[in-house]
Amino acid sequence: MTLPTIRTVGVIGTGVIGASWTALFLARGLKVIVTDPAPGADGKLRDYLLKHWPTIPNTKVTQDEYLNNFKFVKEIDAHLGDIDLIQENGPERLDFKRRLFAHLDANTPEHVVIASSSSGLPSSEFITECKKNPARILIGHPFNPPHLVPLVEVVPHQGTGDVYVTAALQFYRSLGKDPVLVKKETPGFIANRLQAAVCAEAYSLVSRGVVSAEDLDKTVTSGLGLRWALTGPIMTNTLGGGGDFNCFMNHLGPALKTWLEDMHRHEFDMDSQDMDVLKERVDEWTSQVNLKEIEESRDKILVGLIKSKTEGSA
Amino acid sequence: MTLPTIRTVGVIGTGVIGASWTALFLARGLKVIVTDPAPGADGKLRDYLLKHWPTIPNTKVTQDEYLNNFKFVKEIDAHLGDIDLIQENGPERLDFKRRLFAHLDANTPEHVVIASSSSGLPSSEFITECKKNPARILIGHPFNPPHLVPLVEVVPHQGTGDVYVTAALQFYRSLGKDPVLVKKETPGFIANRLQAAVCAEAYSLVSRGVVSAEDLDKTVTSGLGLRWALTGPIMTNTLGGGGDFNCFMNHLGPALKTWLEDMHRHEFDMDSQDMDVLKERVDEWTSQVNLKEIEESRDKILVGLIKSKTEGSA
Repeated sequence: MTLPTIRTVGVIGTGVIGASWTALFLARGLKVIVTDPAPGADGKLRDYLLKHWPTIPNTKVTQDEYLNNFKFVKEIDAHLGDIDLIQENGPERLDFKRRLFAHLDANTPEHVVIASSSSGLPSSEFITECKKNPARILIGHPFNPPHLVPLVEVVPHQGTGDVYVTAALQFYRSLGKDPVLVKKETPGFIANRLQAAVCAEAYSLVSRGVVSAEDLDKTVTSGLGLRWALTGPIMTNTLGGGGDFNCFMNHLGPALKTWLEDMHRHEFDMDSQDMDVLKERVDEWTSQVNLKEIEESRDKILVGLIKSKTEGSA
Repeated sequence: MTLPTIRTVGVIGTGVIGASWTALFLARGLKVIVTDPAPGADGKLRDYLLKHWPTIPNTKVTQDEYLNNFKFVKEIDAHLGDIDLIQENGPERLDFKRRLFAHLDANTPEHVVIASSSSGLPSSEFITECKKNPARILIGHPFNPPHLVPLVEVVPHQGTGDVYVTAALQFYRSLGKDPVLVKKETPGFIANRLQAAVCAEAYSLVSRGVVSAEDLDKTVTSGLGLRWALTGPIMTNTLGGGGDFNCFMNHLGPALKTWLEDMHRHEFDMDSQDMDVLKERVDEWTSQVNLKEIEESRDKILVGLIKSKTEGSA
């Protein structure tokens, strides 16, 4: 079975993630039918689209087309027959998602992929009341903001059909994104787990006074992170072993083990008073810097970095 | 006490790290007296300097000056009186470093900072035979390659004097580097511990078949790493909490705890058969890609990224 080409996307929920998805879909020349029950959501979405247009890489349409190819609707039900894929961005509440997905499943043509942007709830938990075709439901979890950062974690549940997984991966790739396939539902998926690993050790080092919060971050932004923007942990290990992961492991494995053992001995306890110490030390730094400037500068350089990576690999 | 301005640096050992330090010192207009007992080390250093000249950011001299401002010597002893700071890059063997540092300490003027590039041995372990002034000895651990990546971990031992710590931090800053101060000797210092945290979870996810080695890396290079190149874990949390780390922790702390608990349950055991599974899965990917091309592309984009960060913050 080959699924039809995706030309029209339904976007449910236009908070930060939904609005950013909408911007990306429109910039790639897709039609979007979008809904959100919040008062003033329509106007806010237009403002978001206008503001972020200049930062979207590789746009395929004019700004006019981008701004006119979406329809904001109060009720999406009447439009579900016109939609080729749904990207859902509702609140992360299980009861809400269960009802929403049962309704979407019942009212959307059987072959249409329904992807949820959920970062926390795996789809196996909210498809429980879907009777029609839960096999077309999966997670398509973006990294914020989706119109800029290429990563999407595609997470099927045990009953998701391969054809829908393939269709979702192809769809995200066609937008210029870099989807990864999470083959087994895992709490936090991949990105949040790797992030948690770094954060837990960072919290331990800062709360124990080994390093200041500012210097902890600098270790990442002026060192580790520069490399990780370009090669991941596995490739970095492999190149570190002169092109051979085995060689890296034989050479550095014993040291790695020693560090990990010491890290275990000093594990950060989220429920202890160390948390108060951590918060104080973070505040000592962050209260003295201009957060707005840092965020704006980051977003600006991020756009350039993503552009140079795309060109470098093209 | 204020230490004299550093105009001449002594470099001991010209392997990859020592050669790269030499390139940086020369490009910043310093004189370098350099030694290495390996046969042909002089010629190899010249080749290295010539090859890497185009990639060094913010050079302060002409290429001729860069190539002529160093003196390769067979024995450094006769020159120790002319040197304002020593950057040591010898083998990571305790007996070797103990003898070397006892010798350097005895024969170098008392105020001269002696920094070791050691990544594994803390200086408290190898100053044991220094009689003259071990207070001027510390670690200045770079991230490879030092002429490009700004991070230097400055790690004093318990007896290192504040004046020498300050001098080392100022010296590295004057080169355009971003030194961080590791206030307590800690196995792996900061960068290697954060790296180990990510690697351990990466190994677990890949060996358990949750994600392929390629997709694991993509999660970092197309998501997490892009952000970490620009804001570290603490600032990322703070911005994620709308400018408030407390708010982030109240909102996401419980999820973080759940993920960390699940990560503990599936901790990677470096001594188990999971290591073989991991190696196989890594090999499935890395045997099918052009590692040389990946490395060259990384180095090229890295130069641009560091340049755009420097300009963005200037």
